[in-house]
Amino acid sequence: MTARALLADLPAYTALKEHAAKLQFASMEGLFNADSNRASTFSASAAGLRLDYSKHLLSASALSSLFELADQAGIRESIEALFSGAHVNTTEDRPALHTLLRASSGDGQESRFQEVLSARNRMQVMAQTLYRGEHNGYSGKPVTDVVNIGIGGSDLGPRLVTQALKPYHGDVRCHYVSNVDPADLLDTLSTLDAASTVFIICSKSFRTEETLANGLAARDWMLNAGATVAQLEQHFLAVTTNLQAAKDFGIPQENCLPMWDWVGGRYSVWSAVGLSCAVAVGWENFSEFLAGAEAMDQHFRTSEAHNNLPLLMSLLEIWYCHFFHASNHVVLPYDHSLQRFPDFLQQLTMESNGKRVSAEGQPLDYGTAPVLWGSAGTMGQHSFHQLLHQGTLLCPVDFVLPLNSHTGADQQHRILVANCLAQSRTLMVGRSLEDARKALLERGLAEDKAAALAPHLAMPGNRPSSVITMDSLNPRTLGALLALYEHRTFCSGQIWRINSFDQWGVELGKEISTEILGQLTDARDDSAMDAATDRLISLWKEAQR
Amino acid sequence: MTARALLADLPAYTALKEHAAKLQFASMEGLFNADSNRASTFSASAAGLRLDYSKHLLSASALSSLFELADQAGIRESIEALFSGAHVNTTEDRPALHTLLRASSGDGQESRFQEVLSARNRMQVMAQTLYRGEHNGYSGKPVTDVVNIGIGGSDLGPRLVTQALKPYHGDVRCHYVSNVDPADLLDTLSTLDAASTVFIICSKSFRTEETLANGLAARDWMLNAGATVAQLEQHFLAVTTNLQAAKDFGIPQENCLPMWDWVGGRYSVWSAVGLSCAVAVGWENFSEFLAGAEAMDQHFRTSEAHNNLPLLMSLLEIWYCHFFHASNHVVLPYDHSLQRFPDFLQQLTMESNGKRVSAEGQPLDYGTAPVLWGSAGTMGQHSFHQLLHQGTLLCPVDFVLPLNSHTGADQQHRILVANCLAQSRTLMVGRSLEDARKALLERGLAEDKAAALAPHLAMPGNRPSSVITMDSLNPRTLGALLALYEHRTFCSGQIWRINSFDQWGVELGKEISTEILGQLTDARDDSAMDAATDRLISLWKEAQR
Repeated sequence: MTARALLADLPAYTALKEHAAKLQFASMEGLFNADSNRASTFSASAAGLRLDYSKHLLSASALSSLFELADQAGIRESIEALFSGAHVNTTEDRPALHTLLRASSGDGQESRFQEVLSARNRMQVMAQTLYRGEHNGYSGKPVTDVVNIGIGGSDLGPRLVTQALKPYHGDVRCHYVSNVDPADLLDTLSTLDAASTVFIICSKSFRTEETLANGLAARDWMLNAGATVAQLEQHFLAVTTNLQAAKDFGIPQENCLPMWDWVGGRYSVWSAVGLSCAVAVGWENFSEFLAGAEAMDQHFRTSEAHNNLPLLMSLLEIWYCHFFHASNHVVLPYDHSLQRFPDFLQQLTMESNGKRVSAEGQPLDYGTAPVLWGSAGTMGQHSFHQLLHQGTLLCPVDFVLPLNSHTGADQQHRILVANCLAQSRTLMVGRSLEDARKALLERGLAEDKAAALAPHLAMPGNRPSSVITMDSLNPRTLGALLALYEHRTFCSGQIWRINSFDQWGVELGKEISTEILGQLTDARDDSAMDAATDRLISLWKEAQR
Repeated sequence: MTARALLADLPAYTALKEHAAKLQFASMEGLFNADSNRASTFSASAAGLRLDYSKHLLSASALSSLFELADQAGIRESIEALFSGAHVNTTEDRPALHTLLRASSGDGQESRFQEVLSARNRMQVMAQTLYRGEHNGYSGKPVTDVVNIGIGGSDLGPRLVTQALKPYHGDVRCHYVSNVDPADLLDTLSTLDAASTVFIICSKSFRTEETLANGLAARDWMLNAGATVAQLEQHFLAVTTNLQAAKDFGIPQENCLPMWDWVGGRYSVWSAVGLSCAVAVGWENFSEFLAGAEAMDQHFRTSEAHNNLPLLMSLLEIWYCHFFHASNHVVLPYDHSLQRFPDFLQQLTMESNGKRVSAEGQPLDYGTAPVLWGSAGTMGQHSFHQLLHQGTLLCPVDFVLPLNSHTGADQQHRILVANCLAQSRTLMVGRSLEDARKALLERGLAEDKAAALAPHLAMPGNRPSSVITMDSLNPRTLGALLALYEHRTFCSGQIWRINSFDQWGVELGKEISTEILGQLTDARDDSAMDAATDRLISLWKEAQR
């Protein structure tokens, strides 16, 4: 494969350095004063989402240079390659066709699309049977609870979607177990009746250590509760490519839904991995979720750069990481049901783009994915926002804000909205030393006390944030929101010249874990690892006595 | 106040820069080879916790210089000032005496200690009455559920402790509501019966917007369920300094437990703010929790630097932040019940030390608190660990590992332990390009394919991590663990020369939020803010039609 020019070698890179040098100490309020249309010019919308990116250290000319950078990086060709099924996952020599999972037509991928449709139809039947309470357990009781056992992409996506769409839930409760710590499964099972519980084992390979351990424990629990081995198939479904392993576990083929090697785990909630979501909200809502993502796909594929939400958000990431030394990105959903969104995005962005060599294997001399973190607003305001406002790190923020609430508690929701907008504005305007001093004098402090305290109240401001709004959080806007961040991640990966679709970095830890497990299980020689690990293994053994 | 020398002006700073230059490209395995005692020399223990800090880019001489830095920063005097009630919270001119809340003697703070004891005794009575199911609701039914309404320090601490001590729970269930998003409270109430529910309103000022909004909604819910106004006092307790406001809300003085202005919210779980925890686990366990923290306090106050856990962990933070450009710190508890620990630590560290001026008001020209983030292992392994192993950022990690599980599922817990130790070891050893190539050849890849893929499997290693172990997670070790991180945070704040006990940076956002709420509520002029905020307010108004 021919190596493409790396980021720092693209012609626009130099221009961007110059823009950044100018904008580094710019006043955002000054930028607004200089352009009365800034609020509308620096915003764009698609698929029910609106992005306001006006409160950034960004000028129209810097933005133009960012678009040039994207052009020079061949982003248009990359997008086409993604959708058309080119092998964008270069190290594993396969496409990344998660967009096909939510497509309404095959568009050049007809045979794969037929497989998707066929799986979608089977999934619909399973989901609706459970959703309607028409599936009975071993004792004849209808199933009321579904437990999804998976980890990583087989957990974070479905868990988020089910929680985010709580106002759309039917009667079946969905639960999520991922951690190999037995406490996770045991806590969940303690509230459930085996006779009315179904497990969905989600594992592409059907070999994921955590998922298998939990699956086997769930199987034992079901048998101990009184199910016979033959009745287990009423209680276990699987989403996997490994039909044989599922069968060995006791899940017959008709209870299995497929995955494909051209879909990465972290992009798989649109596939049968989303079965539990479809059970929770019903097929109609799940279809809307897919449709929202498809609308974002079409927008991403066809929109010009200046209106392209995923590309704009990616360019902001590149802008701050490379030209302002930002090493983190904050996402703050002001909606309690999106409290798991940062967890989902951590996998999406950090597993996709936490890479140190180019897709062609060349070591990079620049940084890639920043740390992504955040929590639901307003909770963070009483926790880490102190650092956002007065800390020494640049932390660009995305606020995510549904403008209406499903709760009917309008006044309380209004407080939530006011807090969100206020945080974004406060990051921008800050408070000068002089304003802080005046505010303290107004509170009745003496001159000398006010002067001494003012530096502690002063805030630098000019801290960047975007605001993503939607009329309400519903299946369609949720689908669009997830697809937006998927494509943002893809764009950044392409500009960084990396393969966003592999994760070779997690392999070695698994291998070493297997070795250590051997040492914990058998009475093998203790001095096989480094001295620190040997010592920790000894400590563990002593603690078992 | 006389300005103390700032960090970069301390004599040891220059020596540390030289150490770091040498160690930057050092091999950790080489450090182990050069010192066969490294695993035990670079470890320390106290209060039931063991800290292994051998897998760091650290030599004995660099560590000596770090101790000198701490000396030169006057850390010994700072620790004494903290415990002896000096006004270490300089900007608010008061002490920070959270250590007194778990003390078993007054030690120079007799009058405050008497207040603590008196509050502790009243708290014990309330907690035990509820814990034993001896408190009845308006219909005469015993109370089975307690809902803590608070935010920030009045939420994160008690929420964590209750969840972490699940194996110690009695029969009363404790729930936590913090977000002003009405969905938070409504979701919780949907599972509860008003007649058997008690609310604890935790707010030092009894003016916290989120807490009051949720408290009022809870009050309405109780009245709607059939309680009379007079019966409300059977269902509402408060933890506050503002008795009058609590009384106005309808909570009589005998239902109120005190807080003090010499305890910060994020350090308050040891006070009556922990009431819900004491209800969940009973007084005996809560006392053990306090005792564990007190054991850590005594260790912190009296141990030499080379054995002082909080100081050692703080010096590692300073080391990586200042000499290796680390801007984040990762905490990975390998225990599912500690999954909220990173949330708790975010407030503790980022609200305490996310500051940009010295305690004396002097702007700092160096960075302070890094971003703290993490999640429960093994879940992160299937999410962001890719970035830890192969990303381009230095992310120092703390692994927290109880060596025994309460679940009885020993084999599954063994897998958890093996994974934890394996992640720490993998971060250190990495995988060379040559080893990656050989591994691929062994899997049967052709020479050219193996050579092309090897850079993607190679991992740099030499990434630092600590491992904190304890025999098991119980009330005592949990108390010690929280106190450990409290004191670590304090040490770093002192070395950074900041006041870790104020949070002036969160004020302005509240003021601006009140202004915006006015605009959302009344039909006021829309163009009172910046153009972006005005536009977002208009969008919100349109969405309401």
